[in-house]
Amino acid sequence: MKYLLEYEEGERVIAFCLVKSREVAVASNQSEYMNLELGDKSGSIQAKLWDVTDELKELIQVKAIIKIDAYVQNYRGKKQLVLQRVRLASSSDEVAMDSLVPTTAFPLESLWDEVEARLAEIKSTTLRAVVDELIHDQEISERLRSFPAGVKMHHHYFGGLLEHTVSLLRLAERLLPLYPQVDRDVLFATCILHDIGKIYELSDPIAPDYSTPGQLIGHLVMGTEMVSEACRKLGISTTDPEILHLKHCILSHHGEMENGWGSAVSGKTPTAVLFHYLDQIDSKMNALGNTLREADEAEEWMYASVLRRKIWRGF
Amino acid sequence: MKYLLEYEEGERVIAFCLVKSREVAVASNQSEYMNLELGDKSGSIQAKLWDVTDELKELIQVKAIIKIDAYVQNYRGKKQLVLQRVRLASSSDEVAMDSLVPTTAFPLESLWDEVEARLAEIKSTTLRAVVDELIHDQEISERLRSFPAGVKMHHHYFGGLLEHTVSLLRLAERLLPLYPQVDRDVLFATCILHDIGKIYELSDPIAPDYSTPGQLIGHLVMGTEMVSEACRKLGISTTDPEILHLKHCILSHHGEMENGWGSAVSGKTPTAVLFHYLDQIDSKMNALGNTLREADEAEEWMYASVLRRKIWRGF
Amino acid sequence: MKYLLEYEEGERVIAFCLVKSREVAVASNQSEYMNLELGDKSGSIQAKLWDVTDELKELIQVKAIIKIDAYVQNYRGKKQLVLQRVRLASSSDEVAMDSLVPTTAFPLESLWDEVEARLAEIKSTTLRAVVDELIHDQEISERLRSFPAGVKMHHHYFGGLLEHTVSLLRLAERLLPLYPQVDRDVLFATCILHDIGKIYELSDPIAPDYSTPGQLIGHLVMGTEMVSEACRKLGISTTDPEILHLKHCILSHHGEMENGWGSAVSGKTPTAVLFHYLDQIDSKMNALGNTLREADEAEEWMYASVLRRKIWRGF
Amino acid sequence: MKYLLEYEEGERVIAFCLVKSREVAVASNQSEYMNLELGDKSGSIQAKLWDVTDELKELIQVKAIIKIDAYVQNYRGKKQLVLQRVRLASSSDEVAMDSLVPTTAFPLESLWDEVEARLAEIKSTTLRAVVDELIHDQEISERLRSFPAGVKMHHHYFGGLLEHTVSLLRLAERLLPLYPQVDRDVLFATCILHDIGKIYELSDPIAPDYSTPGQLIGHLVMGTEMVSEACRKLGISTTDPEILHLKHCILSHHGEMENGWGSAVSGKTPTAVLFHYLDQIDSKMNALGNTLREADEAEEWMYASVLRRKIWRGF
Amino acid sequence: MKYLLEYEEGERVIAFCLVKSREVAVASNQSEYMNLELGDKSGSIQAKLWDVTDELKELIQVKAIIKIDAYVQNYRGKKQLVLQRVRLASSSDEVAMDSLVPTTAFPLESLWDEVEARLAEIKSTTLRAVVDELIHDQEISERLRSFPAGVKMHHHYFGGLLEHTVSLLRLAERLLPLYPQVDRDVLFATCILHDIGKIYELSDPIAPDYSTPGQLIGHLVMGTEMVSEACRKLGISTTDPEILHLKHCILSHHGEMENGWGSAVSGKTPTAVLFHYLDQIDSKMNALGNTLREADEAEEWMYASVLRRKIWRGF
Amino acid sequence: MKYLLEYEEGERVIAFCLVKSREVAVASNQSEYMNLELGDKSGSIQAKLWDVTDELKELIQVKAIIKIDAYVQNYRGKKQLVLQRVRLASSSDEVAMDSLVPTTAFPLESLWDEVEARLAEIKSTTLRAVVDELIHDQEISERLRSFPAGVKMHHHYFGGLLEHTVSLLRLAERLLPLYPQVDRDVLFATCILHDIGKIYELSDPIAPDYSTPGQLIGHLVMGTEMVSEACRKLGISTTDPEILHLKHCILSHHGEMENGWGSAVSGKTPTAVLFHYLDQIDSKMNALGNTLREADEAEEWMYASVLRRKIWRGF
Repeated sequence: MKYLLEYEEGERVIAFCLVKSREVAVASNQSEYMNLELGDKSGSIQAKLWDVTDELKELIQVKAIIKIDAYVQNYRGKKQLVLQRVRLASSSDEVAMDSLVPTTAFPLESLWDEVEARLAEIKSTTLRAVVDELIHDQEISERLRSFPAGVKMHHHYFGGLLEHTVSLLRLAERLLPLYPQVDRDVLFATCILHDIGKIYELSDPIAPDYSTPGQLIGHLVMGTEMVSEACRKLGISTTDPEILHLKHCILSHHGEMENGWGSAVSGKTPTAVLFHYLDQIDSKMNALGNTLREADEAEEWMYASVLRRKIWRGF
Repeated sequence: MKYLLEYEEGERVIAFCLVKSREVAVASNQSEYMNLELGDKSGSIQAKLWDVTDELKELIQVKAIIKIDAYVQNYRGKKQLVLQRVRLASSSDEVAMDSLVPTTAFPLESLWDEVEARLAEIKSTTLRAVVDELIHDQEISERLRSFPAGVKMHHHYFGGLLEHTVSLLRLAERLLPLYPQVDRDVLFATCILHDIGKIYELSDPIAPDYSTPGQLIGHLVMGTEMVSEACRKLGISTTDPEILHLKHCILSHHGEMENGWGSAVSGKTPTAVLFHYLDQIDSKMNALGNTLREADEAEEWMYASVLRRKIWRGF
Repeated sequence: MKYLLEYEEGERVIAFCLVKSREVAVASNQSEYMNLELGDKSGSIQAKLWDVTDELKELIQVKAIIKIDAYVQNYRGKKQLVLQRVRLASSSDEVAMDSLVPTTAFPLESLWDEVEARLAEIKSTTLRAVVDELIHDQEISERLRSFPAGVKMHHHYFGGLLEHTVSLLRLAERLLPLYPQVDRDVLFATCILHDIGKIYELSDPIAPDYSTPGQLIGHLVMGTEMVSEACRKLGISTTDPEILHLKHCILSHHGEMENGWGSAVSGKTPTAVLFHYLDQIDSKMNALGNTLREADEAEEWMYASVLRRKIWRGF
Repeated sequence: MKYLLEYEEGERVIAFCLVKSREVAVASNQSEYMNLELGDKSGSIQAKLWDVTDELKELIQVKAIIKIDAYVQNYRGKKQLVLQRVRLASSSDEVAMDSLVPTTAFPLESLWDEVEARLAEIKSTTLRAVVDELIHDQEISERLRSFPAGVKMHHHYFGGLLEHTVSLLRLAERLLPLYPQVDRDVLFATCILHDIGKIYELSDPIAPDYSTPGQLIGHLVMGTEMVSEACRKLGISTTDPEILHLKHCILSHHGEMENGWGSAVSGKTPTAVLFHYLDQIDSKMNALGNTLREADEAEEWMYASVLRRKIWRGF
Repeated sequence: MKYLLEYEEGERVIAFCLVKSREVAVASNQSEYMNLELGDKSGSIQAKLWDVTDELKELIQVKAIIKIDAYVQNYRGKKQLVLQRVRLASSSDEVAMDSLVPTTAFPLESLWDEVEARLAEIKSTTLRAVVDELIHDQEISERLRSFPAGVKMHHHYFGGLLEHTVSLLRLAERLLPLYPQVDRDVLFATCILHDIGKIYELSDPIAPDYSTPGQLIGHLVMGTEMVSEACRKLGISTTDPEILHLKHCILSHHGEMENGWGSAVSGKTPTAVLFHYLDQIDSKMNALGNTLREADEAEEWMYASVLRRKIWRGF
Repeated sequence: MKYLLEYEEGERVIAFCLVKSREVAVASNQSEYMNLELGDKSGSIQAKLWDVTDELKELIQVKAIIKIDAYVQNYRGKKQLVLQRVRLASSSDEVAMDSLVPTTAFPLESLWDEVEARLAEIKSTTLRAVVDELIHDQEISERLRSFPAGVKMHHHYFGGLLEHTVSLLRLAERLLPLYPQVDRDVLFATCILHDIGKIYELSDPIAPDYSTPGQLIGHLVMGTEMVSEACRKLGISTTDPEILHLKHCILSHHGEMENGWGSAVSGKTPTAVLFHYLDQIDSKMNALGNTLREADEAEEWMYASVLRRKIWRGF
């Protein structure tokens, strides 16, 4: 299968893709045309659709999945698609979402299995029950398998949240033997649940915006409330010490309250303090890895927005 | 009725008071004695109890309410009590808590009536139901009538939280006509509920410490969760916009997230932004009023810990 | 009366308006033309004046008031005026300034009456004399009735400073009964005079820039000096305690010195501390009110530059 | 002449000194005695005056200058005076203030002459007139010759303000040839007047506290107002550009507004920016010089409170 | 073997210990005595030596190792030693340093072996040579086996630096498989060398102070210079990219330059960014572990100075 | 000699200049042309070279020095060169670098002589030897005579580093008599060497970028290492106190560690503290002088990027 950015100038392109932005304009001959940004897993490309009808204007909306017949043109030194034919994709097309948007490089199901495996290792019946209740809820489970971990900073692609979750579980598993002062069960539960509020803070997994509850409450408190809700369903006291510890780790995972990144409370246990650093490590390493991968290999130095400075590829 | 600090040197004192600190020491004759700090509404005084028995050591614990028979002695320029007889107060003594600790100057029941009156004015059935459900819960209602608003900064006395609540309601009522962009119902509900988490963040109303849940979760999130819990009981959706707005105001009432005072999110509505300033005004005015009242009237300048600088009494 | 932005495409416009920006350009036929931004109370619109003569170039300057005869054209999807005839407005035209620029929604004279009423309530003869002396100076009085409270943040329209002043007086009047530790006379005088330096910090009421004294001294110190000057005229000692208190409130009204917003001293009296919050409340509420009013009603979320984040309209 | 700290144990002391603190206590025999701290140029020493009469209690107040007849005793390893006879100093004693308190090492009159010489070099008649008017006012002139530049940070001794002023004039004179973009006249005037507000911000030159106007207004604005007052006397416009520049330099000399040290405005001319650094240099060098001088010569490292860290003497 | 703090009141103590502080005082009978603080691995205890001779005063200096014959006395509720006989320890006593001071719980030689093992795994001949050269220098090797990692914050005991080094190597080894964008060789070399400057920044391993070079240069730059020095000995270019990378990691390991903790440059490679977090994790976990271990087991909450707040033991 | 920006529209230009940027584009007739930015001492100008051959594309690279034959055209209101003939400059052209780029206004050799003169005055043989060794190294000496002191902030022109160095020496010489607590030799050595790392931190003197070592290590540590290297060559101990002091001054010259500008350590001697301010003064005065010189003389206010605010020209 060939992706949008792999076609060369002059080639014909028949492919499914996602409408990422659209704009209707008027040509000098007074007919209307569309400037589109189309995307698939390989990235985004500009496209033009001339002499657009009212029907097409209705059809082609942002986030629509469409099938195109087009050719690649050079426009001011950049490749551009000129669309000849367009239709909406239907369910019978069986378009895989992960072919349409940048997606985690790891198989989603194997990531999921890793979460399950770690969950099974949680010894505390209380914590295991809460995590189990939450991640096996049907809606949550679906969203956890698809949402990114953010809009642009790190793991900002389909399945990114699950990848980040598993990556933290691996970090935790490896570091736990070194620090007996850390609570293994709470740490595992925190890895799985710390960003679970993001599945409602963001609007959808494909081209996410912040939702209204997301902007008013934020994913730290949303996640904490999901834990409380699960406890209620399971008949677990909200002042159970392990539950308090888990909620404390979620609420403090953006670091010290004083740094102004939105922790409602500063970490007050070795587990909470450690988890904040693990989360920083995994998000920074992912963001820097993306920066290195996306930059021209010949560049020795390139701008990394996560650090707001240039980073060095090395030699 | 005469309070502890009103007795002069040489006078006999028969009174109820609260044990605020206690220390057992050994005299030069090897007998044990106690250094106590006793308090009532008028403040605190040092006291000595000589030749203390094991029974008395057991009896006289911090936070115990005792009846004393003593006389006032001058010790190094300060008044001190020498206890002759001591016993624990019993329920038949009917000691009023507000005679034993510094207490709001306003009658608690009339403060409460004001809260009820404002509650009745909330037009939104959703918000009125939530506030009603919470403040008429028996435990909450009792705690709201007794807890201070803090350990030391402002309204740090018996009933202080209720006084602060009512003071904010009065502020809100007076300012609302000036700013139609503010949501009256949400503002009233926020005034009543913004610090409700403090009744569990603090351990008790008399000599409060921070509780374990209080230190791990904090009163902003605790209060938010109490609202969610009330919604659940009442069958109100947790994404009801008015409920989201109320929770947003509670979570952001410590000001901008970036200032590092523990808001999990910055205020994003006129109501939330206004409420933060009202809360600042009422807490600062109370603290400065206390500073002025407690200082020697002859002092033109005195240290106000809430501002960490000296303030001026004026002329 | 119909304002500039109320005309539809194709309509003829005969109106007075203000030149907000001008640019002379050369058309492809080598003749000169003008791109203008014209404004009145309803806002601003682009305009074109073709084949401009030297005389017209001389005539039409920024801040000039002109009478136009024009028609409305659609240019790239936006309305634009094409000017047919233009002349300068003369005094006989009796153009009201508040028809030419965005203006406070309140009648200026009734705002002024409110200031007078509050002034009359100041009991201190010293403070009343100083305020009276200042606001009845002819130049000051005229400027106070016309200047905005700022270039863009809040109350940034004709008469905005007077509206802000009155709004603060209303706030003060309503809150004073709650806080006896606040000095009523000083608070009223501060409300009226706190921003009086702005009438010289800014260059003019219509399209204000910062003046040279404004940039070198700033309105806090300029206002303080105006108070001192009034005292001198009235024979009042500059160390009169009420005058010191008033000057202190003016100098500290941007908040704690440490926050770096230009207070030369931090507030050291309940009155000064309260006034800072009142000023914050009124400027923030005005700015957020403007943001809400100017945004598309369909938008649930919109950017509020005063907070540097998006705010929520609510439901 | 021998100073207080130069007497050895057992010696008789007849000397003038300053009462720096006093406390009346009751001895075991019920008679009253005084614990005094007495000081002169060499520093401070504890003293005891037994069997004190009411007359002596009245006489010996803080800041009084007294003549003592005493002997030196060792008390718990420290030298202490035991007073035998005490009387107030009278004007006929002709006690020089600089023998009683720590004093600048430079002759006050020669410092003053240097100010006069620099004043005479100011070419601008406006600026020269203003400086002349201010420093030759009798009260100002006396205070300028005696006040310290601060309570404890730098030049905190009799005549310190004048020493600091002259030191800045020397710095300015030496640096001016290097930076033609700096205004020589404004810089000289700023050196002389930048801290002139301190003579009223502080209560007195001997044991200074902050005055009430000092705390409410601060020396930056007080100095600015003194300049304005002088202009008025001299008939100079308050918007004279040189006067604006001088006032700007005074108001901004604590550095960038954003650093929160009380500049009402940030420096906006090369002259203002330079002056801030000169002021920093002279105050820091003086403070570090004092720290080095007062520390034990054997110490390689010693705490410098002005920097809040240890400094190195070098080798 | 029994340690100082394990003896009970009344017991005789014959033991080696370290003089941690000493003070000569004069008794009421005019004879001199010494107040000492003596310590061994178990901690510190106060001791008294009466009727001290000049010879003993000469002998017993801070950091001396002495043999004592003493008994344990109760003094104001605390255990205290009364020394009967004292002599300096000689080399024939073969006193093990780790019996005299708090010491890492891990065997020093096995820690060292772990460093060697990891060194052997560095594939880059350049980096391996530099690390090898440095840690096998005799002086460096000895100091690395004995120095603490700091005066009080974390790993502040004999061998603490080596323990911290090995702990970081373990962390690195475990995390490297997760992040291929990190340079394994540079990370291992950084773990071993990042704090190597501390062996000269601190004065000695037993009761360390900051040395003069340590205070003037700091361990980050000192370590960097040690790397450069090793390169020179080995004929490696100072602009070798791997050496630059190693030095960069050392210089940036205190985090972003902007946080003000002394990094001369912010981390600009994934390796440098990761290492900073690993160092934070290990130092914080060690400090919190120490806090938990040293606190009374019954305390649920205890102050952790590394975080400047209380931490929770959990349940 | 006439410089690029001095030619008028229509004039022929025969001149040497520097290629500052280049871009190859395709004209509507499909032939290639070049958009160039050419510069000399007078500044930069856009240029077009039509019908460019492959040979010319190869020849004309950024930083190339070329000889042009061209004429000046008006393009959209700006002057532009149209190149007729171009060739690379050869060594026989003897083009002076300071005619091609903005250059210090002072003769480079006389600046150098001033450095030598000051070096000769250093009394310490150690410090004199180190400075001598470094600045007489051939490569260093050449770079010191050509490099700017920065990419854009201050002294950002050919020879700017040498000018800044001499300017600091003059400042030092003038201030030293006022502050005997400052070490004259260390201060002179610091003036000469504080920015010496910049000759390797930057890539070249003409159109400098940051080098890889520059970005990874930074000029403070690079300069410190150059001092250490010189010591080694000269057999001077790296713990020589004067060398430690010099290195301390270099490492701390960006001010307090806590301000986050990259000082690895805060200044801990009067000399180090003073030098930081001198460096601030000279860089700020240079930058403000440049701003004033480059701005339109008619502008009273102009933006100074070094201060991030507008500055005032004065009257």
